[in-house]
Amino acid sequence: MKPDYSLYLVTDRMRMSTRTLGEAVEQAAAGGCTVVQLREKEIPSLDFYVLASEMKKITDRYGIPLIINDRIDIAMAVGAAGVHIGQKDIPADIARKVIGKEMLLGVSVASAAEAVNAVKAGADYLGVGAMFPTETKPDAGFVSMEELGRIRREVAIPIVVIGGISRENAMLFKPMGIDGLAVVSAVIAESDIKKSASTLRSLFWGKEDLI
Amino acid sequence: MKPDYSLYLVTDRMRMSTRTLGEAVEQAAAGGCTVVQLREKEIPSLDFYVLASEMKKITDRYGIPLIINDRIDIAMAVGAAGVHIGQKDIPADIARKVIGKEMLLGVSVASAAEAVNAVKAGADYLGVGAMFPTETKPDAGFVSMEELGRIRREVAIPIVVIGGISRENAMLFKPMGIDGLAVVSAVIAESDIKKSASTLRSLFWGKEDLI
Repeated sequence: MKPDYSLYLVTDRMRMSTRTLGEAVEQAAAGGCTVVQLREKEIPSLDFYVLASEMKKITDRYGIPLIINDRIDIAMAVGAAGVHIGQKDIPADIARKVIGKEMLLGVSVASAAEAVNAVKAGADYLGVGAMFPTETKPDAGFVSMEELGRIRREVAIPIVVIGGISRENAMLFKPMGIDGLAVVSAVIAESDIKKSASTLRSLFWGKEDLI
Repeated sequence: MKPDYSLYLVTDRMRMSTRTLGEAVEQAAAGGCTVVQLREKEIPSLDFYVLASEMKKITDRYGIPLIINDRIDIAMAVGAAGVHIGQKDIPADIARKVIGKEMLLGVSVASAAEAVNAVKAGADYLGVGAMFPTETKPDAGFVSMEELGRIRREVAIPIVVIGGISRENAMLFKPMGIDGLAVVSAVIAESDIKKSASTLRSLFWGKEDLI
């Protein structure tokens, strides 16, 4: 029932190495990504709905959950597994009321205080970051490894780290009790998306021999 | 139970004569507007949620329904009376499934064929337009009075007309069996919002002596 969060792909159509988002997600899923979060900003709702429906077919085929960023209505419309909300989206407690008990609720946090509030509001998992500098979100603040440790001690729900996750740092988190890596560019901007996904997943699990 | 659609205000923060949207809606409600549709594009979901919550307090005070444009999640989050969707939003039949049976579903249409489809999809009322040229939506197509008549004959649910509705044409529609005027600039861009609302409402009902 509880998803495997170990390699959590966040989409970004501006950073893909492939022609279509469908191809990128397909290859990432083939490479072992365990969750897909569809993130879109400033597109008409109909286009978002059509794109989300397309993603849902792919994630269903691979038996992995589809999470929709921000747009609870799109998530409900396509029957996604859940929604992921940031600090500029509908408040987490209200989001939980709208989606009911069954759908997954992920919340972006950057401090132990925000993490505790998110759990109180009904979050199923947390996205913590940005951990390292990233081109995807240049304005994101940074979370220190110390703060990440505090968050891990304060809350019991799954945590994925996001922001600048790469082959160089992918092995740092599992020993801290973190449940997964959330990646954007480190997978979909790579020339071999499938291999990038499988490499990161292996590194996360500490299986460098499998790479 | 069935709302009074006779003066249906659609918001546009770019066109207000007042400082805040709250003031504009308050004055329009005081002038007799019977429905408020909150329309926002490209603002963060949290801002939309906060704005919608504020509008809900005003419409509740006046006992009139609040409808949210496009964003079903915002509508559900603030407990709005319904949602209004256009042809670039989540498809009407899917929207109906997401909101359930109780919430109002309005659909924008521009032809008798679209009107019939919207009713099949579960629409409670239709917004038909654009009727006349308008600065609010300069790219909107026009619906002829003949087509409006066809729509009225084809469907039984309430119809509001939108697009360039003004004091000059407000009296044309009730004799055709139209249920209300949807207005943007003709109310909120006017220096006296309250008076503009009451004048349009009187003209719609054919009570010119009350103006």
